[in-house]
Amino acid sequence: MVTPLLDDNQLDQKGLENLIEHILSGGVHGLFILGTTGEGPSLKYSLRVELIKRVCNQVDGRVPILAGIMDSSLKESVYIANIAKEAGVQAVVAAPPYFFPVSKVELSGYFNQLLSEVTLPVYLYNQPTLTKLTLDVPLVRDLLKKPNVIGFKDSSGDMTYFQKIKSLVREHDIPLLCGPEELLAESLFAGGDGGVSGGANVFPALYVDIFDAMAAGNFEKAMKLNEIVFMVSNILYSGGDYGSGGVINGIKSALAHFGILQSNHVVSPLSSACPFTPEQLELLQTTINNR
Amino acid sequence: MVTPLLDDNQLDQKGLENLIEHILSGGVHGLFILGTTGEGPSLKYSLRVELIKRVCNQVDGRVPILAGIMDSSLKESVYIANIAKEAGVQAVVAAPPYFFPVSKVELSGYFNQLLSEVTLPVYLYNQPTLTKLTLDVPLVRDLLKKPNVIGFKDSSGDMTYFQKIKSLVREHDIPLLCGPEELLAESLFAGGDGGVSGGANVFPALYVDIFDAMAAGNFEKAMKLNEIVFMVSNILYSGGDYGSGGVINGIKSALAHFGILQSNHVVSPLSSACPFTPEQLELLQTTINNR
Amino acid sequence: MVTPLLDDNQLDQKGLENLIEHILSGGVHGLFILGTTGEGPSLKYSLRVELIKRVCNQVDGRVPILAGIMDSSLKESVYIANIAKEAGVQAVVAAPPYFFPVSKVELSGYFNQLLSEVTLPVYLYNQPTLTKLTLDVPLVRDLLKKPNVIGFKDSSGDMTYFQKIKSLVREHDIPLLCGPEELLAESLFAGGDGGVSGGANVFPALYVDIFDAMAAGNFEKAMKLNEIVFMVSNILYSGGDYGSGGVINGIKSALAHFGILQSNHVVSPLSSACPFTPEQLELLQTTINNR
Amino acid sequence: MVTPLLDDNQLDQKGLENLIEHILSGGVHGLFILGTTGEGPSLKYSLRVELIKRVCNQVDGRVPILAGIMDSSLKESVYIANIAKEAGVQAVVAAPPYFFPVSKVELSGYFNQLLSEVTLPVYLYNQPTLTKLTLDVPLVRDLLKKPNVIGFKDSSGDMTYFQKIKSLVREHDIPLLCGPEELLAESLFAGGDGGVSGGANVFPALYVDIFDAMAAGNFEKAMKLNEIVFMVSNILYSGGDYGSGGVINGIKSALAHFGILQSNHVVSPLSSACPFTPEQLELLQTTINNR
Repeated sequence: MVTPLLDDNQLDQKGLENLIEHILSGGVHGLFILGTTGEGPSLKYSLRVELIKRVCNQVDGRVPILAGIMDSSLKESVYIANIAKEAGVQAVVAAPPYFFPVSKVELSGYFNQLLSEVTLPVYLYNQPTLTKLTLDVPLVRDLLKKPNVIGFKDSSGDMTYFQKIKSLVREHDIPLLCGPEELLAESLFAGGDGGVSGGANVFPALYVDIFDAMAAGNFEKAMKLNEIVFMVSNILYSGGDYGSGGVINGIKSALAHFGILQSNHVVSPLSSACPFTPEQLELLQTTINNR
Repeated sequence: MVTPLLDDNQLDQKGLENLIEHILSGGVHGLFILGTTGEGPSLKYSLRVELIKRVCNQVDGRVPILAGIMDSSLKESVYIANIAKEAGVQAVVAAPPYFFPVSKVELSGYFNQLLSEVTLPVYLYNQPTLTKLTLDVPLVRDLLKKPNVIGFKDSSGDMTYFQKIKSLVREHDIPLLCGPEELLAESLFAGGDGGVSGGANVFPALYVDIFDAMAAGNFEKAMKLNEIVFMVSNILYSGGDYGSGGVINGIKSALAHFGILQSNHVVSPLSSACPFTPEQLELLQTTINNR
Repeated sequence: MVTPLLDDNQLDQKGLENLIEHILSGGVHGLFILGTTGEGPSLKYSLRVELIKRVCNQVDGRVPILAGIMDSSLKESVYIANIAKEAGVQAVVAAPPYFFPVSKVELSGYFNQLLSEVTLPVYLYNQPTLTKLTLDVPLVRDLLKKPNVIGFKDSSGDMTYFQKIKSLVREHDIPLLCGPEELLAESLFAGGDGGVSGGANVFPALYVDIFDAMAAGNFEKAMKLNEIVFMVSNILYSGGDYGSGGVINGIKSALAHFGILQSNHVVSPLSSACPFTPEQLELLQTTINNR
Repeated sequence: MVTPLLDDNQLDQKGLENLIEHILSGGVHGLFILGTTGEGPSLKYSLRVELIKRVCNQVDGRVPILAGIMDSSLKESVYIANIAKEAGVQAVVAAPPYFFPVSKVELSGYFNQLLSEVTLPVYLYNQPTLTKLTLDVPLVRDLLKKPNVIGFKDSSGDMTYFQKIKSLVREHDIPLLCGPEELLAESLFAGGDGGVSGGANVFPALYVDIFDAMAAGNFEKAMKLNEIVFMVSNILYSGGDYGSGGVINGIKSALAHFGILQSNHVVSPLSSACPFTPEQLELLQTTINNR
């Protein structure tokens, strides 16, 4: 879930309410806030705290909430995890720290300490493009033995890695979620358990329909929907030559266009620039409606 | 300057006092706190704030203090800069944010916003190994036009880049400092104005002597001292195969060995493991004394 | 297909005959020689030429042969392509050159010249780990318009990229093959047309069975076979901490163990070191037999 | 030295003669052919062979000749080294192979085999940007023990590495040469023994003057000339956004403009596009003349 903002210092409260209802109406099975798409590491702490509380209030138990606690400081990750617990979040999502390029031994030490200090259940989060560190297979094997590790999200896009992790999580009977929405159908085919799809901020039912089609063994339908996913991604994430790929500003601009958010504001270092024309978005909406 | 710690939550106050006096007694011209070697991004905020205040009190105007404000959140960088200003810090040091791999346009936007919100003078800090983003030459050319940019620290170790930046800062008559201490003498030869040498935590006079020898045109003496710098680095930073190169734990372990710090504690994700024997350190000390 | 060698200067002729018959007996639909697994760029030219001729003689039209022409020199790629044409090869496989890290414009110029000078049909080959250059989507879109481009092999392991290329090749009705054998089933699900599986040197029928199961819509069987593929890969490619991942020496050592090759010789810079025990191989064979 | 070409298949013989005389007239102490700037790995073998013979004939013992033998195939490197020996080359220059990303153990094995098969003296060549492999310090320490290693060329631009290598080569009393010409003066200050400067194709005396000034202890003069080097590089190597940085086409275009070469032809994958105006070149020439 993106974080609706009026400016660097204020949540878009009305937009946040709209967005949560919009996403839930699509049939999703949970919400992941303060992830990469949620701009977690870019937001000031008071906003992270306020967001957690407002989301918990609004969702009010209808679906589970996962909150990202990524930080360069372990103790600040624990702080956010504590806030999340008080607010009623079901689990936190923990990625490697992202300043020092640490060794395997140090990364293992980091997660062991984090898992001992965080009292909520934890999803491990592999996000090498952003953290520049990979949760390698032997480390994951070790960490999965901790009782408070209850899930894994892989945003690497590396499906060989994904399948290796699948064989590990299966032994512990915990879910493996796929980050890149373009690989949602494929990851379910390969044994994955779900997706955390950024595009679901805008068109939540599309991704839920893929999940349902795959669960029903209707692979042909899933692959047709998958083609629409590619079309959506090609438009939504076409935001020029930015390193960040135009993902967040694309989603927020679409949501603002459709009246769900009041503003497409994105905090620095990312850009709010709107990457597409209203005509592109209308075309997209029509395609979705007629799928 | 490293950040003396008793554990993840407490400064080593006695160690901090000792360390400041030890470094100043070596004749350094300033202190840089909360940089990479200071573990800035790993420390919880309350420790960063406490450190700034205590250092300002202890130094009490004897030398200028620079404080790092590196963060993944621009607003938290501004927050630390405000604390630093109140405490009496002379300038802050600003590096690129280090979570999203942003484009040049976005990085420019980031620095323009940061420089407009920070009221203290600013050193730009190029540290590509850790931030994974480089302050490229056209961006630096633009940023140097801002009146509150008063210096540049380059820790890239890329001396071609260093010389290009030198030609830019010269037009504005502001100092260019070199990060890697092994390149201190060489960078002064190439037109640099000083160094921010991690080893100066342990042997401050060694690096000051190189600076003085170069300033006096005594290049032969400088290059002999430079050989001692390499010997020091080879021992101090030999901490195994850690991605972080054993720099911080090396310095802290040496300082604890010599009785300056009470503890060699390093916060996660880095390791406190001591990489050398007491014999190595004594040998080092003897060499320094007899130089 | 690996290149059977007695030493750096001699083909293992008997091993080559055995290997070809072994692979063909598994029901494969073609042979790819002088690829990465075939050590193409490491072999001296006279061996590459001899190999092409011997393979063509031995196969004698039973299946199509693809020959890699990867080189840092375009003219030497053309030379090998000419040899291949004379010998009866059906198509050549062309990857980016791998010394200079060229721009997109230069890479486009390279392929345009190569495609105009090579008279055999061409498969494009994306292999970014080894060539350090990616055939990006706009370039592929352009190159597919050339009439002598008749197929695409993607060894990136990036399934989002794979699906983007799939949408391009579909317009031209040409096949898209997947490199990493662990992704064979998944790539076929995602619309791919086949695989070039290194493990098929040792157990060709395993990969053919996956292809057949997917073609018959028997996805459950395919995914069970896929688990055996992972088991095979885990053993065959376990060759220690080598950057090259132990792929080629793993395959050759297994083939030598089973008596198909006379030697497991690999040319420098890769190593011939055998990464597993005979017991591991026997276990593997039993599993394959009982699948 | 660049390789003068009329087209992909023909040397520019007249240009080659002119170029050699032009460079030697600048007072250089040797020639390095078939290096990166010489497009070694891009040239077809018959051209590499012809170039070696023609250069040896033309130079006729006036200065030593070094010939690059970089290749992805060890045996082809040995072949070129044998040709070089017959032709009268003094030493060959050997870099890591550049297709497979090999391990340290494999890279060590590669150089041990190469050094045992090559009968000419060898310069080791560290060129990580192009070979994507670094000759790390422990490997260099080992290789320097081989009696036929007689020099080292470092093109990494990493001056900390350079100084570490310096401390190794000093024990064996063999020369260490610096690749990037912008670091020539600085590398000599740091204890280096010379440079292999691409710009010396065009303005050989400029770099020789820097060498002489540093040898005479006239550091001020050297640093003034160093500023001209930066100015030359900024113009000569301004060739747009190519990954190859416009180095080779810049040099060849300048040489063709000044009438030394008949053509600025560069073989694929690099581009021959001329990156500057005649006015820029005339300005450059005037500056050089008036230095």
